[in-house]
Amino acid sequence: MRVEIWSDIACPWCYIGKARFEAGLAAFAHRADVEVVHRSFELDRDAPPATDVPILDMLASKYGVSRAQAEEMEARVAEAAAGEGLGYRSDRIHGNTFDLHRLLHLAKAHGVQDALLTALYRANFAEARPLGDPAVLTRIAVEAGVPADEAARVLADPDAFAAEVRADEHAAAELGATGVPFFVIDRRYGISGAQPVDVFHQALQRAHADSAVQVLATDDADVCGDGGCAVPGA
Amino acid sequence: MRVEIWSDIACPWCYIGKARFEAGLAAFAHRADVEVVHRSFELDRDAPPATDVPILDMLASKYGVSRAQAEEMEARVAEAAAGEGLGYRSDRIHGNTFDLHRLLHLAKAHGVQDALLTALYRANFAEARPLGDPAVLTRIAVEAGVPADEAARVLADPDAFAAEVRADEHAAAELGATGVPFFVIDRRYGISGAQPVDVFHQALQRAHADSAVQVLATDDADVCGDGGCAVPGA
Repeated sequence: MRVEIWSDIACPWCYIGKARFEAGLAAFAHRADVEVVHRSFELDRDAPPATDVPILDMLASKYGVSRAQAEEMEARVAEAAAGEGLGYRSDRIHGNTFDLHRLLHLAKAHGVQDALLTALYRANFAEARPLGDPAVLTRIAVEAGVPADEAARVLADPDAFAAEVRADEHAAAELGATGVPFFVIDRRYGISGAQPVDVFHQALQRAHADSAVQVLATDDADVCGDGGCAVPGA
Repeated sequence: MRVEIWSDIACPWCYIGKARFEAGLAAFAHRADVEVVHRSFELDRDAPPATDVPILDMLASKYGVSRAQAEEMEARVAEAAAGEGLGYRSDRIHGNTFDLHRLLHLAKAHGVQDALLTALYRANFAEARPLGDPAVLTRIAVEAGVPADEAARVLADPDAFAAEVRADEHAAAELGATGVPFFVIDRRYGISGAQPVDVFHQALQRAHADSAVQVLATDDADVCGDGGCAVPGA
């Protein structure tokens, strides 16, 4: 089974939803057969580099509320994060995530995508580090297992893995996803949002129970098996 | 869409089926959205290293036929290969493919899996090269884009990517595949054998028409979208 998860590092519900999904997966009997793939989704392509805009200023401006009201909204999300044992700071920096997604595709090629995604979420939400700083990003990538020279090269070249990010976003649109997190099991079942742990667990069970492949071509085929290979006309 | 293809480099119908699938894919309007993944399947785990057993000797022994009869069987398969524009030599070497599959998993991590698989098929069937020779294998891997040091390291360590090969074979058994090639589209539709080009083309069209994801959880969810993020209790 394969679960694809569209998410953005700037998205609190993606951070919280990842923990809930993983709890549901941990309770799933066939978890060893599940491959999890991160897919890119930018909530705000026009965001500035994440270096100096406080998230509370962005929220107050975006929703047209006072800073105190933005703090109140953040406090409620922080409570949901705490419910999953996750740190959550409201003094974090707002900003663009394109480079982070490009790095996540590089990390995938090295088999350390989940380690990097986990580290990026923590750096953003629990540690409020400025992810718009290439030096900070490179350090996080290297700690997650990405070779330093490759991380630096990808960050310096805005075209590197850009097509992969756009392809993920195109696929999300094709699947009808308008928000994140968006979970898709075997391109068959979708789950939108940071649902409760049980919802993920049950979705995995249902997808597993219904995972038989329908064989389309049942004619005598040219095939090789234990007993050898078919020979035409034999 | 994702197509997984279980196959073995020693399998003539996998070699021929790959060409037929690719012709079906080339005619498919949404081919740019299709990701193709090679999956490992060994037809003969107990085969010796591919260095000195002629395939005709193996066939004569396996099927209990004369060498002339084995040549006749091979000629019919060669004809099917020629129909796809593929070279096919009956003086090739029989042997183990475990190391080849391990190398293909390394190639996947470098994004050159298809290039290596194509090169291995050609080296085996069209050029009759001894793929049991690590120097030959390394040269082929490097030409396909695998770093030389990593190819040599993987070939020297029988545990490298062994778990990945076994996981592919386990998945094939779970899906009910008893022979190869075995094609699976989005873990939903299966095609067994080197079917005609049209069968692949139609299967891709059918899978695409039927690719809507069923959304399981439709309750109000904690989600972030264009308009911002849900706030609990708001």
